[in-house]
Amino acid sequence: MAYVKQKLWGGAFSKGPDPLAWSFGQSIDSDSELWASELDVSTAHVKMLGETGIITSEEAGQLECGLNAVGKSILADHEKNGGTWGDVFSRLAPDSEDVHAAIESLLEKEAGPVAGKLHAGRSRNDLVATTTKVWLRAQCQILRRRIRETQRTLLSLSRRHRADPMPGFTHMQSAQPVTLGFHLLAYFWMLQRDVERVAALERCLRFSPLGSAALAGTSLPIDRHFTARELAFEGPMPNALDATSDRDFVGDALHVCAMLMQHLSRLSQELVLWSGPMYGFVKLDEGVTTGSSIMPQKRNPDMAELIRGRSARVIGHWTAFMSMMKALPLGYNRDQQEDKPPLFDSFNLCIESLVLSARMLETAKFNLERMAAVAGDGFATATGVAEALVKEGVAFRSAHEQTGKLVRMCEEQGVSLPDLEVDDIAAQRAVRNATVEQSIASRNSYGGPAPGAMDIQIEEAEALLCHPDEGGISSATTHLTPPQGDPSQARDDKKRKD
Amino acid sequence: MAYVKQKLWGGAFSKGPDPLAWSFGQSIDSDSELWASELDVSTAHVKMLGETGIITSEEAGQLECGLNAVGKSILADHEKNGGTWGDVFSRLAPDSEDVHAAIESLLEKEAGPVAGKLHAGRSRNDLVATTTKVWLRAQCQILRRRIRETQRTLLSLSRRHRADPMPGFTHMQSAQPVTLGFHLLAYFWMLQRDVERVAALERCLRFSPLGSAALAGTSLPIDRHFTARELAFEGPMPNALDATSDRDFVGDALHVCAMLMQHLSRLSQELVLWSGPMYGFVKLDEGVTTGSSIMPQKRNPDMAELIRGRSARVIGHWTAFMSMMKALPLGYNRDQQEDKPPLFDSFNLCIESLVLSARMLETAKFNLERMAAVAGDGFATATGVAEALVKEGVAFRSAHEQTGKLVRMCEEQGVSLPDLEVDDIAAQRAVRNATVEQSIASRNSYGGPAPGAMDIQIEEAEALLCHPDEGGISSATTHLTPPQGDPSQARDDKKRKD
Amino acid sequence: MAYVKQKLWGGAFSKGPDPLAWSFGQSIDSDSELWASELDVSTAHVKMLGETGIITSEEAGQLECGLNAVGKSILADHEKNGGTWGDVFSRLAPDSEDVHAAIESLLEKEAGPVAGKLHAGRSRNDLVATTTKVWLRAQCQILRRRIRETQRTLLSLSRRHRADPMPGFTHMQSAQPVTLGFHLLAYFWMLQRDVERVAALERCLRFSPLGSAALAGTSLPIDRHFTARELAFEGPMPNALDATSDRDFVGDALHVCAMLMQHLSRLSQELVLWSGPMYGFVKLDEGVTTGSSIMPQKRNPDMAELIRGRSARVIGHWTAFMSMMKALPLGYNRDQQEDKPPLFDSFNLCIESLVLSARMLETAKFNLERMAAVAGDGFATATGVAEALVKEGVAFRSAHEQTGKLVRMCEEQGVSLPDLEVDDIAAQRAVRNATVEQSIASRNSYGGPAPGAMDIQIEEAEALLCHPDEGGISSATTHLTPPQGDPSQARDDKKRKD
Amino acid sequence: MAYVKQKLWGGAFSKGPDPLAWSFGQSIDSDSELWASELDVSTAHVKMLGETGIITSEEAGQLECGLNAVGKSILADHEKNGGTWGDVFSRLAPDSEDVHAAIESLLEKEAGPVAGKLHAGRSRNDLVATTTKVWLRAQCQILRRRIRETQRTLLSLSRRHRADPMPGFTHMQSAQPVTLGFHLLAYFWMLQRDVERVAALERCLRFSPLGSAALAGTSLPIDRHFTARELAFEGPMPNALDATSDRDFVGDALHVCAMLMQHLSRLSQELVLWSGPMYGFVKLDEGVTTGSSIMPQKRNPDMAELIRGRSARVIGHWTAFMSMMKALPLGYNRDQQEDKPPLFDSFNLCIESLVLSARMLETAKFNLERMAAVAGDGFATATGVAEALVKEGVAFRSAHEQTGKLVRMCEEQGVSLPDLEVDDIAAQRAVRNATVEQSIASRNSYGGPAPGAMDIQIEEAEALLCHPDEGGISSATTHLTPPQGDPSQARDDKKRKD
Repeated sequence: MAYVKQKLWGGAFSKGPDPLAWSFGQSIDSDSELWASELDVSTAHVKMLGETGIITSEEAGQLECGLNAVGKSILADHEKNGGTWGDVFSRLAPDSEDVHAAIESLLEKEAGPVAGKLHAGRSRNDLVATTTKVWLRAQCQILRRRIRETQRTLLSLSRRHRADPMPGFTHMQSAQPVTLGFHLLAYFWMLQRDVERVAALERCLRFSPLGSAALAGTSLPIDRHFTARELAFEGPMPNALDATSDRDFVGDALHVCAMLMQHLSRLSQELVLWSGPMYGFVKLDEGVTTGSSIMPQKRNPDMAELIRGRSARVIGHWTAFMSMMKALPLGYNRDQQEDKPPLFDSFNLCIESLVLSARMLETAKFNLERMAAVAGDGFATATGVAEALVKEGVAFRSAHEQTGKLVRMCEEQGVSLPDLEVDDIAAQRAVRNATVEQSIASRNSYGGPAPGAMDIQIEEAEALLCHPDEGGISSATTHLTPPQGDPSQARDDKKRKD
Repeated sequence: MAYVKQKLWGGAFSKGPDPLAWSFGQSIDSDSELWASELDVSTAHVKMLGETGIITSEEAGQLECGLNAVGKSILADHEKNGGTWGDVFSRLAPDSEDVHAAIESLLEKEAGPVAGKLHAGRSRNDLVATTTKVWLRAQCQILRRRIRETQRTLLSLSRRHRADPMPGFTHMQSAQPVTLGFHLLAYFWMLQRDVERVAALERCLRFSPLGSAALAGTSLPIDRHFTARELAFEGPMPNALDATSDRDFVGDALHVCAMLMQHLSRLSQELVLWSGPMYGFVKLDEGVTTGSSIMPQKRNPDMAELIRGRSARVIGHWTAFMSMMKALPLGYNRDQQEDKPPLFDSFNLCIESLVLSARMLETAKFNLERMAAVAGDGFATATGVAEALVKEGVAFRSAHEQTGKLVRMCEEQGVSLPDLEVDDIAAQRAVRNATVEQSIASRNSYGGPAPGAMDIQIEEAEALLCHPDEGGISSATTHLTPPQGDPSQARDDKKRKD
Repeated sequence: MAYVKQKLWGGAFSKGPDPLAWSFGQSIDSDSELWASELDVSTAHVKMLGETGIITSEEAGQLECGLNAVGKSILADHEKNGGTWGDVFSRLAPDSEDVHAAIESLLEKEAGPVAGKLHAGRSRNDLVATTTKVWLRAQCQILRRRIRETQRTLLSLSRRHRADPMPGFTHMQSAQPVTLGFHLLAYFWMLQRDVERVAALERCLRFSPLGSAALAGTSLPIDRHFTARELAFEGPMPNALDATSDRDFVGDALHVCAMLMQHLSRLSQELVLWSGPMYGFVKLDEGVTTGSSIMPQKRNPDMAELIRGRSARVIGHWTAFMSMMKALPLGYNRDQQEDKPPLFDSFNLCIESLVLSARMLETAKFNLERMAAVAGDGFATATGVAEALVKEGVAFRSAHEQTGKLVRMCEEQGVSLPDLEVDDIAAQRAVRNATVEQSIASRNSYGGPAPGAMDIQIEEAEALLCHPDEGGISSATTHLTPPQGDPSQARDDKKRKD
Repeated sequence: MAYVKQKLWGGAFSKGPDPLAWSFGQSIDSDSELWASELDVSTAHVKMLGETGIITSEEAGQLECGLNAVGKSILADHEKNGGTWGDVFSRLAPDSEDVHAAIESLLEKEAGPVAGKLHAGRSRNDLVATTTKVWLRAQCQILRRRIRETQRTLLSLSRRHRADPMPGFTHMQSAQPVTLGFHLLAYFWMLQRDVERVAALERCLRFSPLGSAALAGTSLPIDRHFTARELAFEGPMPNALDATSDRDFVGDALHVCAMLMQHLSRLSQELVLWSGPMYGFVKLDEGVTTGSSIMPQKRNPDMAELIRGRSARVIGHWTAFMSMMKALPLGYNRDQQEDKPPLFDSFNLCIESLVLSARMLETAKFNLERMAAVAGDGFATATGVAEALVKEGVAFRSAHEQTGKLVRMCEEQGVSLPDLEVDDIAAQRAVRNATVEQSIASRNSYGGPAPGAMDIQIEEAEALLCHPDEGGISSATTHLTPPQGDPSQARDDKKRKD
């Protein structure tokens, strides 16, 4: 049998592609991830073709049924044989150039020659942009849910440890005593900004490129508002050339992922430090640590290290994407195909890292005694001394200077601040109160670690999580998406299958 | 006289800094850009100190007057001696470590010892974060105004050239005829997304770090809601550790700048191509071109090349920033000082590039005859042939295949599509109509280049520009900011001064 | 049957890893690429263990045989079932954490309990560093061979087109007429620098980490010089902590790849431009172009676009790698595992891009008439006019000024330089000779396009390619490497297999 | 007086540049750094013009004298008025477009109209490439000298602390006891690779672009071999188009800087950790630390933090550079002007960071008692137990497993390894010897921390530093370079001047 490549072009060509060129150019290995979104988009498209009379309503019905059947056969194959979506397509539609060609060829198997009517009034240029947006929209929902879960973990731990003293650091040096709950809440608010960033990203996805065709629309009487509505977009993008050249939403998505990974990387850095022997603040659960092939005693915080290391990968993805786009003239250029692998990888990575971060925190054993014991090290309560002098009327600049000298006296005498003997009565009073407990209790300004301020902060955090759902676009069109949805889920599924 | 370094610390130190360490660590060379925002923030802070009784209302008044006087003396020096803000500070407050130390020392000159009370209840950690946000807020307003102006230029040119044919490209190959107006409007919408991105960035700036102090608040009875209100923030940030460790807003701002520069780089790439001899679509004005030191005939599109080249600089800035932050534990680390030079440079670059882009476009002479003459090259009207067959009932896949073969016939016979003789009547009718004019006129789908669709698109664009002002935070607190505001303005000022 | 994870640790653990943690942490999916190098390294290691008496020579013999058998079984499985090396290992050693664990478990199957003696005196930390270097060394040889082939193609085309005029550009504007051969040779020299860069990279690989163990050597009497010799290294690395923390060679390799891809991207950019309708300099072969799903006439230069686009991917890889390493304390951190996927991807990409670049060039049809016809456009011969005046004694600065005015006269009169009438005799003589042919013939300085200079340049290029082999380290140890060697080969193999 | 812009073109222009375009396009602010190299290159060029008879030998003499005088006047102004080189040129040659125009205008002042003959047979395109290479060559010498100094500091400290125990870490967890000298030597070897990288970079600079003119040589009878010899290059670059389009050497230089900064960043990360209260391994000298504006007790390791943070800047520079170059067609494009600011900044940063790293180390007070006390924490001697069992004939895999269980027993009983009671005699013997001292003494494999292995390592390191000078190209042509040479020197100079 002749060797047939599945592709959506070729009439003007006198010969087939060079084999290396074919394998270099095919994208089915990565874009098969989009199949469910592609089916949603194609379904909306055929409905529109029927509504506008470009094809008959009977044909539209056949195509819609066919697309439905394609979805079922894909899921059935995956159910039976497992593997990645790329594996599924290499079984069902081998030698396809991309997910578009693969699905059109599967549709032909299911629906017969009417499949040839699917692609009227559209091009891969608008199709892939629309499909990627629909995919991204579904991912945003998953991502937000996962962020919320990690926030819940942080909030719950913060509540439990609201009053457990620990050293606060700046420049990685002793700064002021804080509490473990106060420290963990900082991450809650970082993730809160990530939730807002995801919501802003969803707004970037609200217009549909579909029907822009190759670069400048079509002479067929399509209805772009119809498909936009069907796919739950706010409306169609107003310029077809822009719609097919634009990848802003990919850049925005990569930035959102990079910022989230930065936050998780910082948390991971702290877990690595804290679980090390010099800090000794926490013992991570064995389930999220690994050992050494040579050193029998080792329990390494590998998950935290990998999250920290892989955060760099998303930085690289953004850089590669921006570097790729930076000097492309309009409209679509093939370089743009390079947008999807980093996008898919970044979302997978974010979601898995969120789950693992929460798991590390939930199962960690904090060494509260150790933390409390070192909370006052390094004259960490000195600021309180200076502020006590201010309350006595000393200008802050002088109080700071004076306290600095008290610290030097302590160092020279080898005593701690509360134990220092000084002549000045105000100063004496100030150092006496320079204990860890007093220090924490006194910093009651909004956002501080004192019990009262912490109550308010926890309450505000709780209020944010109470909202039943912060919305996003309704999932009307994503009925097929779940099975490929959440990679941390998928991994487990895959394992069970193997 | 002894050599005195202006710095806000030292009581606990037995000796001064190493000279190279001092010069490596000082930041006045770059952060002097922040002086006006710093005065705004300090003014709000001293008002609050007075309101809460941490200092007397008389002292608060003296400090407020003093800060006002400092602003006037800075402006006066600049008025008289010109140069950068760094130059101003090296004259007024030499050997200052940073803008904070410089301003406190200037305040002491103006207001006397009461200046020592300024810094109560705050730290440089919360101060610099707040000041940077206030600066950024003002820059967002300038940036949005400049984007709007460039959009206006694009819209006005698009209106003028709405019906002037030009070739549309994909893969930098002939695709379909479009119009110059249609093509330029694509950039209008790209910039529209930038406007939205700026608005989203402004939302990222709505909470105030001020009063978070070093990392964990203060024992002084400050009122963070008061200063937040004074500075037109929505409220204070809820966790002091997060507030001083957070630089999300810098990353977000760099991303916004990088995306904007990507758009301008793509436009510049097209201007370079179009002004080249092979395209010959446009002649740039001599004022925005330069010559060669050896080739006397040269008029090079240097501004476009520099915008294209410098777009890479902002990519580098984002990368450097993210790479710097990625594994920092909480709270403030000195590495974070590296956030400001890229931020300042990126905004300057965006604003100057916007102005120059508009100027290039406004003064360009488009060669409309040349564009029209090549609009149909490369069988660019073939898609219309296929779509005509679809209208006759042929499945699109077959129509595409059939048209591909017609193109090959044309190539073999050396004729254009409208001149091809074919037996099939439908095909004959289709190729006859495959002219540039018909092709454009027929693509009347929403977002397409046909006159009707263009009317709608232009109307929608106009509606967006009609809004008197899309808001942002009111500029109540930025009365001092204008003089250092808009770098494209400042450059001209500077030139006049020199 | 119990579910068993293959890993090289666990004695101190009370329970197994969390499933998501396991899948997040495993690296077999990517590092299976290293299997052949790993067998080479392990073979050298067991020989040494026997030589030093750490194990008996009989045990050493059993292990060596076993490793040999493991290699055969891997090849046999691949021969039979195809797929990637990852696929092979998921069949032969499912649930392995990494290639090290997989091979040790396969060795146990082949050699029995003596396999437990393999890992004495080493750790995965030194093992993976050594194995990656050995792999990289083999890749350097392949890469250099592929660069040489592409240079040959360029040289051969340059010879053929040494005298075919084409326009030379700077700033993408008309500069001076050159020849196609001259232009293509520029790429020859760019690739020559890449060959030198590969050679420098090979020098970076000359010391062996093996025997550094986890971070600080071993108490077993190993002989690191022995294994270094066996593996054709110059010697062992002198500090075990450095040897296991170091990834400089990965950064260096990524830089080499990024520079090579930059060169190929620039070539691709030119092929995209030249094959476009406005330039019309070249027609790419259909085998390396693809069509459009909607526009039947299209033949897009996708391979060139993808090389151009993917060059950004390697930039991203370097950035991610450097960002990952930048603040890691010594010794080994798990983050470092992230070095391999970008490394493998970059080499694959370089090799495939080289092959495709050569293929595009070899099969391209240059439109020599078109190139010649526009070679003089835009007053490209003006520099020659100025230089002719210099020969008459005019200072260059004046000659340049004067010629600039002649060009303006031409523009105003609408004539070309040779047709301009001027009073001054010297100037008249100069413009008369300002033809494309004269212009090219006159620029005979070393490295110029005139025939004489071209002869010398081609001769020098030929001399470089004559060397039978520019060496690199002998391939004594890489007898197992070829089957996984050259990805452009492998792709074809894989296709045949499927 | 009329406002005159100094530029090297304009004859064909009917009007002057737009002011914003001028300020956007000028590069004198940054490229003035190149002035001394430019004078060297121009001197070689005028000698050649004289030798070849393109100008008379009298004219050549006048030009050479003039260039010499220009150099003197630049130095004199700097001596008198101080500031940056940009400041010097804004005084001597205001409103110059770039350093080339500035120097040509200064030459005219010194030598009169003959200055108009300087630019014959060259262009800014080849000039700037040559000048940058000459500058870079001089910088390489400075950089290597600074690296050597830092290596000397490391070696000297390593000698002193060769036997002082400290904990060795992997994954930032307890791994095995090492010595401080052993740990510091790891950085010696990292810097040794940097020295080699600098040497490889110097080889990348061995061919001269000069005489390539704009893109394709000149019709004047120049002698490129002459100028190459004069400037101590090995020869001219063989293709003029490549010579003017090439910026490989900038990319290579940025990579070298980025790798060096990565090493210093890792060292800084350790100094930050070690000087923190949880490690307490080292106290940095006050001269290289700074305080807090609010917390009086603080001594922050700012220099280490800034080196760590600024290492990211060089990553950003490389990324920006590669992103800028990646799709530029040949020949010179104005984008390439963006190569110099990152190059200058990167070298400055490397040199200052090297000096500060050495200074931090030299003045640090190591807390040897603390380090020794925790060297065995976390069962860090367990590997020795396993290896002791191997010596008794146990397979390593079993010994590892068995030792892992001993560690669990220790944990359960709350004892250290040497204190554990076990039945098995071999195991009992093994744990008894699991002390820090034994552990270090036993790891005597090449590259290990045992005294014997350390002797060898130190000897090898000493041998490398003994070489009087590892060469590089002789500095014949760089007689003017020193004054602008070493930024860490210059900073001090500047301070004295101000």
